[in-house]
Parts: sequence; C-alpha cells; structure tokens
Amino acid sequence: MYAVIFKAKVNELDKAYYAMAARMRELAIGEYGCSGFVSVTEADQEIAISYWDNLNNIHKWKQNAEHLVAQELGKSSWYKSYHVQVVEIICEYKKDL
Amino acid sequence: MYAVIFKAKVNELDKAYYAMAARMRELAIGEYGCSGFVSVTEADQEIAISYWDNLNNIHKWKQNAEHLVAQELGKSSWYKSYHVQVVEIICEYKKDL
Repeated sequence: MYAVIFKAKVNELDKAYYAMAARMRELAIGEYGCSGFVSVTEADQEIAISYWDNLNNIHKWKQNAEHLVAQELGKSSWYKSYHVQVVEIICEYKKDL
Repeated sequence: MYAVIFKAKVNELDKAYYAMAARMRELAIGEYGCSGFVSVTEADQEIAISYWDNLNNIHKWKQNAEHLVAQELGKSSWYKSYHVQVVEIICEYKKDL
C-alpha cells in the first residue's frame, strides 16, 4: 500500500477551501481508488494523508482536471508552503483501547 | 528515508502528556537520529510523523526505556485508539510560495 503525505503551512482558510477539500476527498475516493483519507489542521499546520493501492492511481489523481484547479488555488491563495511525500507502507499495527 | 506515521484518537490531554511529548521529541532527535518531527492535533485526531535515516534507529527508539513508559501511558490514559505505519519515502517535492 502507498500513501501521500501532504504537509502545508496555511493562510487563513475560507469557505471555498473547505468546499474544495470536501470535493477533492469525494473525487479521490469515489473515482480514483483512494482507499482512505485523513486531514488535521492545528494553527497554521495542515497534515493530510491519503492512501492508495498503487502508484498509478496517485499519478492519475494528480492530473485530474478539478484537482489541478485545486492545486493552483492552493498555491495562489490557501498555502504559504507545502511538502508532498509519496511513501510505501512497510509495516503497520493498530489498536483500539 | 523512512518515516513513522502515528495516528491516534485522543482522550482529554493533560499537562503530563505535553511534557512527555516534548521529552520524547528531544530524546528521539537528540539520541536516536530522528531527523524531523511534526505533530498536529485537531479535536480528537492526532497525527505525528517522525523521519529517520534507517529502520534500525526506528527499532531502537521503539525499545527506549522512557519511550516504553510513554507508550504505556498512551495506552492506559491518553489514547482511545492508535495506528502506526512505518513507511519508506519514494519521492517528494516541496515549495515555498
């Protein structure tokens, strides 16, 4: 399994950001095979992690037309900086307490 | 490069948690070769990501005596659930805007 770690320093976020974030989540999961998504923002630090079965889907998603618009809006208004890391999951464990 | 993604659902966090979190960060970076650390909490969702040059350092850090105490306190009081993923970074890009 693969994941994309997206970290960003955010400017003040507007309604359009939250609407776009919800739409991106829906599209990635519904049409591009994204198998999971979690996003957390505290002060100006955002971390979002999406999960994928293969690298090809990640690549296709990056080129989606609506996603390209979102990426441009992120660069022009929502983000001060961003850092994307594509990773492969080696091992994992989890527990409900 | 490798990373450890730690995701947790948290209970109400106390002073001891923040003191322990600061100590763990200091120890991991100062004595175990952790090369970077970012932690974000929003409502009851925490995501922390640590970065490492090799898997051996991750393994040694997991066994550190103080870290074992922190892990037990996490299980017994701070966390409702947790999910750890050890990952290898395949590619990355970043930008200051």
